[in-house]
Amino acid sequence: MSTPVLYYVAGNASLAPHIVLQEIGAPYDLKRVDRDQHEHKSADYLKLNPSGLIPALVDGNLVLTEAAAICLYLADRHPESRLTPALGTPERAQLYKWLMYLTNTLQAELSTYFYPHRLGGEFAKGIVQVNAEMRASAMLDIIEKHFADSVNNATEKTAIEKMGAHVASLANAPLAEPQWILGADYSIADAYLMMLCRWTRGFSRPARARPHLHCFLVQMMARPAVSHVFAQEKLLTPPY
Amino acid sequence: MSTPVLYYVAGNASLAPHIVLQEIGAPYDLKRVDRDQHEHKSADYLKLNPSGLIPALVDGNLVLTEAAAICLYLADRHPESRLTPALGTPERAQLYKWLMYLTNTLQAELSTYFYPHRLGGEFAKGIVQVNAEMRASAMLDIIEKHFADSVNNATEKTAIEKMGAHVASLANAPLAEPQWILGADYSIADAYLMMLCRWTRGFSRPARARPHLHCFLVQMMARPAVSHVFAQEKLLTPPY
Repeated sequence: MSTPVLYYVAGNASLAPHIVLQEIGAPYDLKRVDRDQHEHKSADYLKLNPSGLIPALVDGNLVLTEAAAICLYLADRHPESRLTPALGTPERAQLYKWLMYLTNTLQAELSTYFYPHRLGGEFAKGIVQVNAEMRASAMLDIIEKHFADSVNNATEKTAIEKMGAHVASLANAPLAEPQWILGADYSIADAYLMMLCRWTRGFSRPARARPHLHCFLVQMMARPAVSHVFAQEKLLTPPY
Repeated sequence: MSTPVLYYVAGNASLAPHIVLQEIGAPYDLKRVDRDQHEHKSADYLKLNPSGLIPALVDGNLVLTEAAAICLYLADRHPESRLTPALGTPERAQLYKWLMYLTNTLQAELSTYFYPHRLGGEFAKGIVQVNAEMRASAMLDIIEKHFADSVNNATEKTAIEKMGAHVASLANAPLAEPQWILGADYSIADAYLMMLCRWTRGFSRPARARPHLHCFLVQMMARPAVSHVFAQEKLLTPPY
Protein backbone atom coordinates (compact mmCIF):
# COMPACT_ATOMS: atom_id res chain seq x y z
CA MET A 1 0.00 0.00 0.00
CA SER A 2 1.35 3.44 -0.93
CA THR A 3 1.90 6.11 1.72
CA PRO A 4 -0.78 8.81 1.36
CA VAL A 5 0.28 12.45 1.31
CA LEU A 6 -2.09 15.10 2.69
CA TYR A 7 -1.71 18.68 1.44
CA TYR A 8 -2.77 20.84 4.37
CA VAL A 9 -3.06 24.31 5.85
CA ALA A 10 -3.12 24.45 9.67
CA GLY A 11 -6.70 24.46 10.97
CA ASN A 12 -8.15 24.44 7.47
CA ALA A 13 -10.49 21.84 5.90
CA SER A 14 -7.51 19.47 5.96
CA LEU A 15 -7.95 19.14 9.76
CA ALA A 16 -10.59 16.37 9.63
CA PRO A 17 -8.66 14.18 7.13
CA HIS A 18 -5.52 14.76 9.22
CA ILE A 19 -7.30 13.52 12.35
CA VAL A 20 -8.60 10.49 10.40
CA LEU A 21 -5.08 9.65 9.17
CA GLN A 22 -3.78 9.85 12.74
CA GLU A 23 -6.65 7.75 14.12
CA ILE A 24 -5.94 5.04 11.52
CA GLY A 25 -2.33 4.94 12.65
CA ALA A 26 -0.82 3.83 9.33
CA PRO A 27 2.10 5.86 7.89
CA TYR A 28 1.25 9.11 6.10
CA ASP A 29 3.05 12.23 4.97
CA LEU A 30 2.06 15.87 5.32
CA LYS A 31 2.79 18.69 2.87
CA ARG A 32 2.10 22.16 4.16
CA VAL A 33 0.61 24.51 1.55
CA ASP A 34 1.77 28.09 2.13
CA ARG A 35 -1.46 30.01 1.74
CA ASP A 36 0.19 33.33 2.59
CA GLN A 37 2.33 32.82 -0.53
CA HIS A 38 -0.83 31.87 -2.51
CA GLU A 39 0.62 28.40 -3.06
CA HIS A 40 -2.94 27.00 -3.23
CA LYS A 41 -3.46 29.03 -6.42
CA SER A 42 -0.16 27.95 -8.00
CA ALA A 43 -0.18 25.92 -11.23
CA ASP A 44 1.21 22.88 -9.37
CA TYR A 45 -1.52 22.88 -6.74
CA LEU A 46 -4.29 23.62 -9.25
CA LYS A 47 -3.27 20.38 -10.99
CA LEU A 48 -4.21 18.57 -7.77
CA ASN A 49 -7.35 20.60 -7.10
CA PRO A 50 -8.70 22.77 -9.96
CA SER A 51 -10.84 24.66 -7.41
CA GLY A 52 -7.66 25.73 -5.55
CA LEU A 53 -9.15 24.55 -2.26
CA ILE A 54 -7.50 22.76 0.67
CA PRO A 55 -7.10 19.79 1.14
CA ALA A 56 -5.87 17.35 -1.48
CA LEU A 57 -4.74 13.77 -0.88
CA VAL A 58 -2.31 11.93 -3.12
CA ASP A 59 -2.27 8.15 -2.66
CA GLY A 60 -0.31 6.35 -5.35
CA ASN A 61 -1.98 7.30 -8.63
CA LEU A 62 -5.06 8.67 -6.89
CA VAL A 63 -5.47 12.42 -6.47
CA LEU A 64 -8.44 13.13 -4.25
CA THR A 65 -10.09 16.37 -3.14
CA GLU A 66 -13.05 17.27 -0.90
CA ALA A 67 -12.33 16.76 2.80
CA ALA A 68 -15.37 14.55 3.47
CA ALA A 69 -14.56 12.35 0.46
CA ILE A 70 -10.98 11.94 1.71
CA CYS A 71 -12.23 10.91 5.16
CA LEU A 72 -14.60 8.31 3.66
CA TYR A 73 -11.93 6.95 1.32
CA LEU A 74 -9.33 6.58 4.08
CA ALA A 75 -11.78 4.85 6.42
CA ASP A 76 -12.90 2.48 3.62
CA ARG A 77 -9.26 1.57 2.95
CA HIS A 78 -8.75 0.76 6.62
CA PRO A 79 -11.82 -1.17 7.77
CA GLU A 80 -9.78 -2.39 10.75
CA SER A 81 -9.85 1.16 12.13
CA ARG A 82 -13.66 0.93 12.46
CA LEU A 83 -14.14 4.62 11.69
CA THR A 84 -17.22 3.93 9.52
CA PRO A 85 -20.10 1.48 10.02
CA ALA A 86 -20.44 -1.51 7.66
CA LEU A 87 -21.83 -1.00 4.15
CA GLY A 88 -25.59 -1.30 3.74
CA THR A 89 -26.40 -0.80 7.43
CA PRO A 90 -28.72 1.91 8.84
CA GLU A 91 -25.70 3.19 10.81
CA ARG A 92 -23.75 3.69 7.58
CA ALA A 93 -26.74 5.58 6.17
CA GLN A 94 -26.69 7.90 9.19
CA LEU A 95 -22.97 8.48 8.73
CA TYR A 96 -23.61 9.54 5.13
CA LYS A 97 -26.42 11.82 6.32
CA TRP A 98 -24.30 13.59 8.90
CA LEU A 99 -21.33 14.00 6.57
CA MET A 100 -23.58 15.46 3.86
CA TYR A 101 -25.38 17.71 6.33
CA LEU A 102 -22.13 18.96 7.82
CA THR A 103 -20.52 19.66 4.46
CA ASN A 104 -23.40 21.11 2.46
CA THR A 105 -25.09 23.06 5.22
CA LEU A 106 -22.84 24.02 8.14
CA GLN A 107 -19.55 24.08 6.21
CA ALA A 108 -21.09 25.96 3.26
CA GLU A 109 -22.57 28.54 5.63
CA LEU A 110 -19.23 28.93 7.43
CA SER A 111 -17.58 29.50 4.09
CA THR A 112 -19.97 32.41 3.53
CA TYR A 113 -19.28 33.67 7.07
CA PHE A 114 -15.52 33.75 6.43
CA TYR A 115 -15.77 35.15 2.88
CA PRO A 116 -18.96 37.24 2.87
CA HIS A 117 -17.71 39.56 0.12
CA ARG A 118 -17.97 36.69 -2.38
CA LEU A 119 -21.75 36.95 -2.20
CA GLY A 120 -22.30 40.44 -0.86
CA GLY A 121 -19.42 42.40 -2.37
CA GLU A 122 -18.12 45.43 -0.46
CA PHE A 123 -21.66 46.79 -0.50
CA ALA A 124 -23.35 44.03 1.49
CA LYS A 125 -20.64 41.85 3.03
CA GLY A 126 -21.61 42.99 6.51
CA ILE A 127 -25.23 41.88 6.36
CA VAL A 128 -24.27 38.65 4.58
CA GLN A 129 -21.84 37.77 7.38
CA VAL A 130 -24.38 38.52 10.10
CA ASN A 131 -26.98 36.33 8.40
CA ALA A 132 -24.47 33.53 7.76
CA GLU A 133 -23.55 33.49 11.47
CA MET A 134 -27.23 33.44 12.45
CA ARG A 135 -27.95 30.57 10.05
CA ALA A 136 -24.89 28.56 11.14
CA SER A 137 -25.93 29.05 14.77
CA ALA A 138 -29.36 27.59 14.02
CA MET A 139 -27.59 24.56 12.49
CA LEU A 140 -25.46 24.17 15.63
CA ASP A 141 -28.71 24.18 17.62
CA ILE A 142 -30.01 21.29 15.49
CA ILE A 143 -26.82 19.30 16.17
CA GLU A 144 -26.98 20.17 19.88
CA LYS A 145 -30.56 18.87 19.98
CA HIS A 146 -29.44 15.69 18.24
CA PHE A 147 -26.86 15.06 20.99
CA ALA A 148 -29.41 15.87 23.70
CA ASP A 149 -31.94 13.46 22.16
CA SER A 150 -29.28 10.74 21.84
CA VAL A 151 -28.48 11.01 25.55
CA ASN A 152 -32.18 10.82 26.38
CA ASN A 153 -32.80 7.90 24.02
CA ALA A 154 -29.83 5.77 25.08
CA THR A 155 -31.72 2.61 25.91
CA GLU A 156 -28.90 0.78 27.67
CA LYS A 157 -28.90 3.25 30.55
CA THR A 158 -31.33 3.38 33.43
CA ALA A 159 -33.16 6.62 34.04
CA ILE A 160 -30.88 7.52 36.93
CA GLU A 161 -27.70 6.74 35.01
CA LYS A 162 -29.04 8.84 32.15
CA MET A 163 -29.66 11.74 34.46
CA GLY A 164 -26.17 11.40 35.93
CA ALA A 165 -24.57 11.39 32.50
CA HIS A 166 -26.64 14.35 31.44
CA VAL A 167 -25.66 16.37 34.50
CA ALA A 168 -22.01 15.42 33.96
CA SER A 169 -22.24 16.70 30.40
CA LEU A 170 -23.81 19.95 31.52
CA ALA A 171 -20.92 20.41 33.97
CA ASN A 172 -18.54 20.12 31.01
CA ALA A 173 -16.98 16.94 32.34
CA PRO A 174 -16.54 14.10 29.85
CA LEU A 175 -19.32 11.51 29.99
CA ALA A 176 -18.34 8.18 31.49
CA GLU A 177 -19.41 6.65 28.18
CA PRO A 178 -18.47 9.03 25.39
CA GLN A 179 -21.34 10.08 23.20
CA TRP A 180 -20.56 10.59 19.53
CA ILE A 181 -22.63 11.85 16.64
CA LEU A 182 -23.61 8.27 15.68
CA GLY A 183 -24.17 7.32 19.33
CA ALA A 184 -21.78 4.90 21.03
CA ASP A 185 -19.43 4.53 18.03
CA TYR A 186 -16.81 7.11 17.16
CA SER A 187 -16.59 7.84 13.42
CA ILE A 188 -15.10 10.14 10.81
CA ALA A 189 -18.17 12.37 11.20
CA ASP A 190 -16.92 13.31 14.69
CA ALA A 191 -13.61 14.53 13.29
CA TYR A 192 -15.56 16.53 10.72
CA LEU A 193 -17.89 18.05 13.29
CA MET A 194 -15.01 19.06 15.53
CA MET A 195 -13.29 20.86 12.67
CA LEU A 196 -16.43 22.85 11.92
CA CYS A 197 -17.15 23.61 15.59
CA ARG A 198 -13.65 25.03 15.86
CA TRP A 199 -14.39 27.42 13.01
CA THR A 200 -17.26 28.95 15.01
CA ARG A 201 -15.01 30.08 17.86
CA GLY A 202 -15.39 33.73 16.82
CA PHE A 203 -19.22 33.57 16.91
CA SER A 204 -21.09 35.57 19.51
CA ARG A 205 -22.40 32.14 20.54
CA PRO A 206 -19.81 29.58 19.41
CA ALA A 207 -20.36 25.81 19.31
CA ARG A 208 -18.68 25.39 22.70
CA ALA A 209 -21.37 27.56 24.33
CA ARG A 210 -23.83 24.66 23.90
CA PRO A 211 -23.48 22.11 26.74
CA HIS A 212 -23.60 18.89 24.69
CA LEU A 213 -21.34 20.24 21.97
CA HIS A 214 -18.92 21.46 24.64
CA CYS A 215 -18.89 17.98 26.16
CA PHE A 216 -18.32 16.52 22.68
CA LEU A 217 -15.35 18.85 22.10
CA VAL A 218 -13.82 17.95 25.47
CA GLN A 219 -14.17 14.25 24.57
CA MET A 220 -12.55 14.86 21.20
CA MET A 221 -9.54 16.66 22.71
CA ALA A 222 -9.11 13.73 25.12
CA ARG A 223 -8.41 11.42 22.18
CA PRO A 224 -4.63 10.99 21.72
CA ALA A 225 -4.91 11.20 17.90
CA VAL A 226 -6.75 14.53 18.11
CA SER A 227 -4.41 16.19 20.60
CA HIS A 228 -1.45 14.95 18.53
CA VAL A 229 -2.85 16.54 15.37
CA PHE A 230 -3.59 19.83 17.14
CA ALA A 231 0.00 19.92 18.38
CA GLN A 232 1.36 18.95 14.96
CA GLU A 233 -0.58 21.77 13.25
CA LYS A 234 0.43 24.15 16.08
CA LEU A 235 -3.16 25.17 16.71
CA LEU A 236 -3.17 27.67 19.52
CA THR A 237 -5.31 27.43 22.62
CA PRO A 238 -8.17 27.80 23.10
CA PRO A 239 -8.34 25.20 20.35
CA TYR A 240 -12.09 25.55 19.71
CA MET B 1 -36.53 -6.14 2.58
CA SER B 2 -38.96 -3.33 3.37
CA THR B 3 -40.34 -1.10 0.64
CA PRO B 4 -38.70 2.34 0.88
CA VAL B 5 -40.91 5.44 0.80
CA LEU B 6 -39.55 8.67 -0.68
CA TYR B 7 -41.09 11.96 0.44
CA TYR B 8 -40.79 14.25 -2.57
CA VAL B 9 -41.66 17.55 -4.17
CA ALA B 10 -41.61 17.56 -8.00
CA GLY B 11 -38.24 18.71 -9.33
CA ASN B 12 -36.89 19.30 -5.82
CA ALA B 13 -33.82 17.68 -4.19
CA SER B 14 -35.85 14.46 -4.15
CA LEU B 15 -35.31 14.15 -7.93
CA ALA B 16 -31.90 12.42 -7.73
CA PRO B 17 -33.01 9.81 -5.13
CA HIS B 18 -36.16 9.25 -7.21
CA ILE B 19 -34.05 8.55 -10.31
CA VAL B 20 -31.83 6.20 -8.27
CA LEU B 21 -34.87 4.28 -6.98
CA GLN B 22 -36.16 3.91 -10.53
CA GLU B 23 -32.75 2.83 -11.86
CA ILE B 24 -32.53 0.13 -9.17
CA GLY B 25 -35.90 -1.20 -10.28
CA ALA B 26 -36.97 -2.63 -6.91
CA PRO B 27 -40.41 -1.63 -5.53
CA TYR B 28 -40.71 1.78 -3.86
CA ASP B 29 -43.45 4.18 -2.83
CA LEU B 30 -43.70 7.93 -3.31
CA LYS B 31 -45.34 10.42 -0.96
CA ARG B 32 -45.84 13.90 -2.37
CA VAL B 33 -45.22 16.69 0.15
CA ASP B 34 -47.49 19.67 -0.55
CA ARG B 35 -45.07 22.55 -0.27
CA ASP B 36 -47.71 25.12 -1.22
CA GLN B 37 -49.59 24.05 1.92
CA HIS B 38 -46.30 24.26 3.93
CA GLU B 39 -46.54 20.53 4.61
CA HIS B 40 -42.71 20.39 4.81
CA LYS B 41 -42.90 22.58 7.92
CA SER B 42 -45.67 20.52 9.55
CA ALA B 43 -45.00 18.74 12.85
CA ASP B 44 -45.30 15.34 11.11
CA TYR B 45 -42.71 16.16 8.46
CA LEU B 46 -40.35 17.84 10.92
CA LYS B 47 -40.26 14.52 12.79
CA LEU B 48 -38.74 13.01 9.64
CA ASN B 49 -36.46 15.95 8.87
CA PRO B 50 -35.92 18.54 11.63
CA SER B 51 -34.51 20.93 8.98
CA GLY B 52 -37.84 20.83 7.13
CA LEU B 53 -36.04 20.09 3.88
CA ILE B 54 -36.98 17.76 1.03
CA PRO B 55 -36.39 14.80 0.66
CA ALA B 56 -36.75 12.17 3.36
CA LEU B 57 -36.63 8.42 2.91
CA VAL B 58 -38.33 5.95 5.24
CA ASP B 59 -37.11 2.36 4.91
CA GLY B 60 -38.37 0.10 7.68
CA ASN B 61 -37.14 1.68 10.90
CA LEU B 62 -34.67 3.93 9.10
CA VAL B 63 -35.53 7.58 8.54
CA LEU B 64 -32.94 9.15 6.28
CA THR B 65 -32.45 12.71 5.04
CA GLU B 66 -29.94 14.46 2.74
CA ALA B 67 -30.43 13.61 -0.93
CA ALA B 68 -26.82 12.51 -1.53
CA ALA B 69 -26.87 10.26 1.55
CA ILE B 70 -30.12 8.66 0.35
CA CYS B 71 -28.57 7.98 -3.07
CA LEU B 72 -25.50 6.35 -1.49
CA TYR B 73 -27.57 4.28 0.92
CA LEU B 74 -29.90 2.98 -1.81
CA ALA B 75 -26.99 2.07 -4.10
CA ASP B 76 -25.18 0.31 -1.23
CA ARG B 77 -28.31 -1.73 -0.50
CA HIS B 78 -28.49 -2.81 -4.14
CA PRO B 79 -24.95 -3.65 -5.24
CA GLU B 80 -26.46 -5.60 -8.18
CA SER B 81 -27.56 -2.26 -9.69
CA ARG B 82 -23.89 -1.24 -10.02
CA LEU B 83 -24.67 2.43 -9.38
CA THR B 84 -21.54 2.90 -7.21
CA PRO B 85 -18.01 1.51 -7.65
CA ALA B 86 -16.72 -1.10 -5.18
CA LEU B 87 -15.60 -0.07 -1.69
CA GLY B 88 -11.94 0.92 -1.30
CA THR B 89 -11.33 1.54 -5.01
CA PRO B 90 -10.03 4.81 -6.52
CA GLU B 91 -13.29 4.95 -8.52
CA ARG B 92 -15.30 4.88 -5.30
CA ALA B 93 -13.11 7.71 -3.98
CA GLN B 94 -13.91 9.79 -7.08
CA LEU B 95 -17.62 9.11 -6.62
CA TYR B 96 -17.38 10.46 -3.07
CA LYS B 97 -15.47 13.48 -4.36
CA TRP B 98 -18.07 14.36 -6.99
CA LEU B 99 -21.01 13.85 -4.65
CA MET B 100 -19.37 16.07 -2.02
CA TYR B 101 -18.42 18.70 -4.57
CA LEU B 102 -21.89 18.75 -6.08
CA THR B 103 -23.66 18.99 -2.75
CA ASN B 104 -21.44 21.39 -0.80
CA THR B 105 -20.46 23.68 -3.65
CA LEU B 106 -22.90 23.75 -6.59
CA GLN B 107 -26.02 22.78 -4.63
CA ALA B 108 -25.22 25.15 -1.77
CA GLU B 109 -24.67 28.00 -4.24
CA LEU B 110 -27.93 27.20 -6.03
CA SER B 111 -29.68 27.31 -2.70
CA THR B 112 -28.40 30.86 -2.27
CA TYR B 113 -29.46 31.69 -5.85
CA PHE B 114 -33.04 30.55 -5.18
CA TYR B 115 -33.28 32.07 -1.68
CA PRO B 116 -30.96 35.11 -1.76
CA HIS B 117 -32.93 36.99 0.93
CA ARG B 118 -31.75 34.44 3.51
CA LEU B 119 -28.27 35.94 3.30
CA GLY B 120 -28.91 39.36 1.83
CA GLY B 121 -32.28 40.29 3.29
CA GLU B 122 -34.49 42.66 1.30
CA PHE B 123 -31.60 45.13 1.26
CA ALA B 124 -29.08 43.01 -0.65
CA LYS B 125 -30.89 39.98 -2.07
CA GLY B 126 -30.34 41.27 -5.62
CA ILE B 127 -26.56 41.43 -5.43
CA VAL B 128 -26.40 38.13 -3.54
CA GLN B 129 -28.42 36.40 -6.29
CA VAL B 130 -26.24 37.86 -9.06
CA ASN B 131 -23.07 36.71 -7.30
CA ALA B 132 -24.50 33.26 -6.56
CA GLU B 133 -25.34 32.78 -10.24
CA MET B 134 -21.86 33.91 -11.25
CA ARG B 135 -20.22 31.53 -8.76
CA ALA B 136 -22.44 28.60 -9.76
CA SER B 137 -21.60 29.27 -13.41
CA ALA B 138 -17.88 29.05 -12.63
CA MET B 139 -18.55 25.66 -10.98
CA LEU B 140 -20.42 24.48 -14.09
CA ASP B 141 -17.35 25.50 -16.10
CA ILE B 142 -15.17 23.28 -13.89
CA ILE B 143 -17.52 20.32 -14.47
CA GLU B 144 -17.64 21.06 -18.21
CA LYS B 145 -13.83 21.02 -18.29
CA HIS B 146 -13.84 17.71 -16.43
CA PHE B 147 -16.05 16.17 -19.15
CA ALA B 148 -13.89 17.68 -21.90
CA ASP B 149 -10.70 16.31 -20.30
CA SER B 150 -12.29 12.87 -19.88
CA VAL B 151 -13.13 12.73 -23.59
CA ASN B 152 -9.59 13.76 -24.46
CA ASN B 153 -8.05 11.29 -22.02
CA ALA B 154 -10.10 8.26 -23.02
CA THR B 155 -7.20 5.95 -23.86
CA GLU B 156 -9.24 3.24 -25.55
CA LYS B 157 -10.07 5.49 -28.48
CA THR B 158 -7.85 6.40 -31.41
CA ALA B 159 -7.27 10.06 -32.10
CA ILE B 160 -9.72 10.06 -34.98
CA GLU B 161 -12.42 8.27 -33.00
CA LYS B 162 -11.87 10.77 -30.22
CA MET B 163 -12.32 13.65 -32.60
CA GLY B 164 -15.49 12.06 -34.03
CA ALA B 165 -16.97 11.61 -30.56
CA HIS B 166 -16.08 15.14 -29.62
CA VAL B 167 -17.70 16.57 -32.75
CA ALA B 168 -20.80 14.45 -32.10
CA SER B 169 -21.01 15.86 -28.60
CA LEU B 170 -20.66 19.40 -29.90
CA ALA B 171 -23.52 18.70 -32.31
CA ASN B 172 -25.63 17.68 -29.28
CA ALA B 173 -25.99 14.11 -30.51
CA PRO B 174 -25.38 11.40 -27.90
CA LEU B 175 -21.89 9.93 -27.96
CA ALA B 176 -21.67 6.39 -29.34
CA GLU B 177 -20.18 5.47 -25.96
CA PRO B 178 -21.90 7.51 -23.25
CA GLN B 179 -19.59 9.57 -21.12
CA TRP B 180 -20.53 9.90 -17.47
CA ILE B 181 -19.01 11.90 -14.63
CA LEU B 182 -16.90 8.87 -13.56
CA GLY B 183 -16.02 8.04 -17.18
CA ALA B 184 -17.48 4.90 -18.77
CA ASP B 185 -19.59 3.88 -15.75
CA TYR B 186 -22.93 5.47 -14.97
CA SER B 187 -23.39 6.22 -11.25
CA ILE B 188 -25.59 7.99 -8.71
CA ALA B 189 -23.42 11.11 -9.20
CA ASP B 190 -24.89 11.46 -12.71
CA ALA B 191 -28.43 11.54 -11.34
CA TYR B 192 -27.26 14.17 -8.86
CA LEU B 193 -25.54 16.28 -11.50
CA MET B 194 -28.58 16.20 -13.75
CA MET B 195 -30.83 17.42 -10.94
CA LEU B 196 -28.53 20.38 -10.27
CA CYS B 197 -28.07 21.21 -13.98
CA ARG B 198 -31.85 21.38 -14.28
CA TRP B 199 -31.96 23.97 -11.51
CA THR B 200 -29.75 26.29 -13.58
CA ARG B 201 -32.24 26.51 -16.47
CA GLY B 202 -33.09 30.11 -15.56
CA PHE B 203 -29.43 31.22 -15.67
CA SER B 204 -28.31 33.64 -18.36
CA ARG B 205 -25.92 30.80 -19.28
CA PRO B 206 -27.52 27.56 -18.04
CA ALA B 207 -25.74 24.21 -17.80
CA ARG B 208 -27.18 23.12 -21.18
CA ALA B 209 -25.36 26.01 -22.90
CA ARG B 210 -22.09 24.09 -22.39
CA PRO B 211 -21.54 21.47 -25.11
CA HIS B 212 -20.37 18.56 -22.95
CA LEU B 213 -22.97 19.19 -20.28
CA HIS B 214 -25.64 19.44 -22.96
CA CYS B 215 -24.50 16.10 -24.35
CA PHE B 216 -24.58 14.65 -20.82
CA LEU B 217 -28.16 15.89 -20.31
CA VAL B 218 -29.27 14.41 -23.63
CA GLN B 219 -27.73 11.07 -22.61
CA MET B 220 -29.48 11.23 -19.25
CA MET B 221 -32.91 11.88 -20.80
CA ALA B 222 -32.33 8.89 -23.10
CA ARG B 223 -32.26 6.58 -20.07
CA PRO B 224 -35.67 4.95 -19.57
CA ALA B 225 -35.49 5.37 -15.76
CA VAL B 226 -34.87 9.11 -16.10
CA SER B 227 -37.61 9.81 -18.63
CA HIS B 228 -40.00 7.73 -16.51
CA VAL B 229 -39.22 9.81 -13.40
CA PHE B 230 -39.60 13.10 -15.29
CA ALA B 231 -43.02 11.94 -16.51
CA GLN B 232 -44.00 10.70 -13.05
CA GLU B 233 -43.12 14.07 -11.46
CA LYS B 234 -44.86 15.87 -14.36
CA LEU B 235 -41.79 18.02 -15.03
CA LEU B 236 -42.62 20.29 -17.94
CA THR B 237 -40.50 20.63 -21.03
CA PRO B 238 -37.91 21.92 -21.57
CA PRO B 239 -36.87 19.59 -18.73
CA TYR B 240 -33.47 21.19 -18.13
